[in-house]
Amino acid sequence: ANSVLGGYGTTIFEVMSKLAIDHGAINLGQGFPDVDGPEDVRRTAAEALLGGLNQYPPMMGLPALRQAVADANRRFYGLDIDWTREVMVTSGATEALTDCLMALIEPGDEVVLFEPLYDCYLPMVRRAGGVPKLVRLDPPHWELPVEALKAAFSAKTKLILLNNPMNPTGKVFDRAELEIIAGLVEAHDAYALCDEVYEHIVFDGLAHIPLMTLPGMRKRCIRLGSAGKTFSLTGWKVGYVTADAELMSVLAKAHQFITFTTAPNLQNAVAYGLAKGDDYFTGLAAGMQGKRDRFRDRLGKAGFAAATCAGTYFLNVDFRPTGFDGTDEEFCRRITTEAGVAAVPVSAFYQSDGAVRHFARLCFAKRDEVLDEAAERLANFF
Amino acid sequence: ANSVLGGYGTTIFEVMSKLAIDHGAINLGQGFPDVDGPEDVRRTAAEALLGGLNQYPPMMGLPALRQAVADANRRFYGLDIDWTREVMVTSGATEALTDCLMALIEPGDEVVLFEPLYDCYLPMVRRAGGVPKLVRLDPPHWELPVEALKAAFSAKTKLILLNNPMNPTGKVFDRAELEIIAGLVEAHDAYALCDEVYEHIVFDGLAHIPLMTLPGMRKRCIRLGSAGKTFSLTGWKVGYVTADAELMSVLAKAHQFITFTTAPNLQNAVAYGLAKGDDYFTGLAAGMQGKRDRFRDRLGKAGFAAATCAGTYFLNVDFRPTGFDGTDEEFCRRITTEAGVAAVPVSAFYQSDGAVRHFARLCFAKRDEVLDEAAERLANFF
Ligand SMILES: CSCCC(=O)C(=O)O
Ligand SMILES: CSCCC(=O)C(=O)O
Repeated sequence: ANSVLGGYGTTIFEVMSKLAIDHGAINLGQGFPDVDGPEDVRRTAAEALLGGLNQYPPMMGLPALRQAVADANRRFYGLDIDWTREVMVTSGATEALTDCLMALIEPGDEVVLFEPLYDCYLPMVRRAGGVPKLVRLDPPHWELPVEALKAAFSAKTKLILLNNPMNPTGKVFDRAELEIIAGLVEAHDAYALCDEVYEHIVFDGLAHIPLMTLPGMRKRCIRLGSAGKTFSLTGWKVGYVTADAELMSVLAKAHQFITFTTAPNLQNAVAYGLAKGDDYFTGLAAGMQGKRDRFRDRLGKAGFAAATCAGTYFLNVDFRPTGFDGTDEEFCRRITTEAGVAAVPVSAFYQSDGAVRHFARLCFAKRDEVLDEAAERLANFF
Repeated sequence: ANSVLGGYGTTIFEVMSKLAIDHGAINLGQGFPDVDGPEDVRRTAAEALLGGLNQYPPMMGLPALRQAVADANRRFYGLDIDWTREVMVTSGATEALTDCLMALIEPGDEVVLFEPLYDCYLPMVRRAGGVPKLVRLDPPHWELPVEALKAAFSAKTKLILLNNPMNPTGKVFDRAELEIIAGLVEAHDAYALCDEVYEHIVFDGLAHIPLMTLPGMRKRCIRLGSAGKTFSLTGWKVGYVTADAELMSVLAKAHQFITFTTAPNLQNAVAYGLAKGDDYFTGLAAGMQGKRDRFRDRLGKAGFAAATCAGTYFLNVDFRPTGFDGTDEEFCRRITTEAGVAAVPVSAFYQSDGAVRHFARLCFAKRDEVLDEAAERLANFF
């Protein structure tokens, strides 16, 4: 077996989802909504199956979806994108990440990443031959450690992988932070791979700011979006990549040999979805914000201290105030098997020593009654 | 850009499909059927979109599909497969190939491949760090060059990538040939990555024999299948991998970081499809055989000499008897732009010098009237 991949276990999401199923626990571990996205979007996909969108679409994606992605870039962020050369459809953002890393990295290139990190980032970077340089954010406020970030960049930096809004932290990078990042990217003649799948799930009147919109960043950024998060259809695995034409021609070479294409009926439906009115997108954020507030409030009453959560559908809670004094792994295992609520230990997202070990990540993209029941189970357990 | 991928152009299929569209040509280049597969299979997928199969399925695939794949292995080949540990669902066979190569290859490992080869094989092997060792088959009969094959194996051989039935040649390996390959795999303690996506498209009463069924091969073979070819739904991108449990645990680590999962509504429909009666599968082969015969006959009358075609939906024809004496690239470009029929030059599938340059590959998975019209256009052109 390849020695890079061989060293990794099964993803924590799969492990915790399985444990949740085995114990009939409410699964707040793996992040996915328990209510499917818009019926009209799903109906559009269903009709295409019967109506004849069943053979290979173009390798870069259906024109309708590529246009819709370009339109959304303009509408939401004022970005001027040429859909014929600057948009590519992928089989989910996971494939898009693989494509970009495989396309850009030469063995020995350095990649700057923030911890806590989404669990596929490190193995992907390493398998592509990259050398990860980790910069650590800590709860409860996930401030950007500017000096550490500067120190992580070097002459060998090929790119920074920036997840914004950030899973698992729920952090939304503000303009000042993005300016610092942009300055470093520019100064080191590097790229930024911007995983922005939670772009439409931002709270409290904050705006999601794509790094690509900052001065000098248009040609250095690759922006990833995903129908899974934007339309609450995580199983569809339809992602989209926006990048400068020259950069895109490089990314396309990886994509064509990794999955080649993505189901056209789903692509067509996502094109339809991206053209929805503003109320859909603001409604998505407002709905999730309501859930965050509801769940945070109930968990607070149960004694948990929540970290800042400005976006995504994850809340990280410090469990020490409840009196539990084991590790986060012990905590998550116990609440899954004994309290009937599955969560993910935040230390699973850290690689470096001294990781935070007293936070659990809970997904709140669930029906209110499910959140209430989960909070009650946890309250009763402690 | 990564130097391996940077060296490759756009896949020949995409290039020829685009040229075909630009010139309104009948597209017999890229391989896909012009009639979608079974309506009940498509309806099953459509219903699942509305009925609630829209969130992440398990990373290894929906249990229903994994079971169906194991059942099909037993039913068609007598293979005894544990679906819980020996089957994985992928986003098409292309992803499955990437997964397997990324999972198994260490830089410097040698990979034995047959030319002419499906165009993603070489870049994938190289991007994974593998060193290709090419063994060349020639038209019109694509005989196995046994001595060259033996010479291609060495102490560094990690695996052989065997496409059987073989695209673009239409060759179906017989038992004697497979025994030679099995002997070499065993003698070199290697693996065989068996791309068998055309397993159900075999003609003239021949049987498809998975290398995995030969003595000693159960633990050394990885078998790939695909709904795209088996159900004439090439856009669905649902593939499946069968391998010994220990090997599978290694492959799964690559898959979980490359696409992670595949749309569950499509998976569910493919599970339904794989349970269809024998008449579906024999009907698929018989239908394609009829098309091969029809098209080969008409092309023969137009002066083309067809190479042996025992499976897949590709026919390779020698165009020299028509009097055309340019290269295959010139031929394909001319018939696409001037005769209105797109084909793929067979030399595009060869890497080594002295490649065959007087054959064109034509896809015959088309309605009879389309094949007739294409043959007529070619007949009139020469
Ligand atoms: C790829 S499964 C994980 C889903 C997710 O985004 C998360 O739980 O963080
Ligand atoms: C991946 S597109 C190519 C389709 C195909 O299998 C072929 O034409 O050989």
